[in-house]
Amino acid sequence: MSKQLNSKFIVIEGLEGAGKSSAISLVRDFIEKHTGAVPVCTREPGGTPLAERIRDLVKIADETDPLCDEAECLLFYAARAQLVANVIKPALRRGEWVLGDRHNLSSLAYQGGGRGLSTLVESVSRATLGDFKPDLTIYLDIEPKLGLTRAANRGELDRIEVEEIAFFERARHTFLSYAQQDDSIQVIDAGQTMAEVHKDIVALLQAQDW
Amino acid sequence: MSKQLNSKFIVIEGLEGAGKSSAISLVRDFIEKHTGAVPVCTREPGGTPLAERIRDLVKIADETDPLCDEAECLLFYAARAQLVANVIKPALRRGEWVLGDRHNLSSLAYQGGGRGLSTLVESVSRATLGDFKPDLTIYLDIEPKLGLTRAANRGELDRIEVEEIAFFERARHTFLSYAQQDDSIQVIDAGQTMAEVHKDIVALLQAQDW
Repeated sequence: MSKQLNSKFIVIEGLEGAGKSSAISLVRDFIEKHTGAVPVCTREPGGTPLAERIRDLVKIADETDPLCDEAECLLFYAARAQLVANVIKPALRRGEWVLGDRHNLSSLAYQGGGRGLSTLVESVSRATLGDFKPDLTIYLDIEPKLGLTRAANRGELDRIEVEEIAFFERARHTFLSYAQQDDSIQVIDAGQTMAEVHKDIVALLQAQDW
Repeated sequence: MSKQLNSKFIVIEGLEGAGKSSAISLVRDFIEKHTGAVPVCTREPGGTPLAERIRDLVKIADETDPLCDEAECLLFYAARAQLVANVIKPALRRGEWVLGDRHNLSSLAYQGGGRGLSTLVESVSRATLGDFKPDLTIYLDIEPKLGLTRAANRGELDRIEVEEIAFFERARHTFLSYAQQDDSIQVIDAGQTMAEVHKDIVALLQAQDW
């Protein structure tokens, strides 16, 4: 099989404070050792010049013109469409691996579950992405209270991170519900120590049929 | 019937150079005389601080990160969702009339017909707007060549206005096709003199059951 056909798209998902950043470092190192090449790393929303400008619109609260839930959802998908078309798909076609800090599952969980817009989100997701999806999504599962405490200790919270706890509970429930239905989404218990979490992630990666 | 129930949402649509601006002035004057109040005037994309920032993303070409068709469509709907939620619906609820420079039909025509994304556009339109639509849409119909010549004489063309003629032919075909299926969309021949166009618009407005 050619290297091109072996390129993979791996995504790290999780609530605020679940430990995405250190997991991304770990997975990046694993990919580099496994393939001999550094993966293309993306973050969502963002990852292209235009998508980063969309990220600014989503992250910053404007009290004179509060972002409505539907517009928020559509901005996330606009940024995602741009990233998939101009970065992710071209990289996979070149045979490179792609490692994503969040992707579609975040919209399904936060906007769908959290905001209660699942009909809009699922419809826009299907219309925008079709059957394109990550080869593997690692969902770092954490109790919202614990995650938010960690995130708050890290510094200032953005427009979405200041939502009430019930919002994150609904998002978590949705993450877990999608994971139950889709084998490409694997759940890691992120309430463990960092050493244990990393051990579980490495075991998961080593168990893949790559 | 209370004034609130009488509030209407009227939209002017048309290709570049169809004469939207002077038609808007005319309709605004008509509404002012008819209701005794100045209507809320909107433009799309745009019309709220955030939607105007989205407009900038759509209008300006970036050669290093060309806006993909799907992202363009989703940005238009993000701006529209924001405008409908924060401006149009609140105004109608207050009993004010709203006059729009473009609305959903432009996306159906340009992104659906012009770009060939009708499945995405119709799906996002339905998911975002539901059954919300203008009470009356006045579509100023013009031959793309004539309209673009007028628009070019007016000044610099933006990212969309520099599309090839076939793009605008497809958009025009879609405008006319929606008008055929929906009585709330009325076609005015914008190839006539301005005096004739204005006479037709006034006749159309006077014929409404308001």
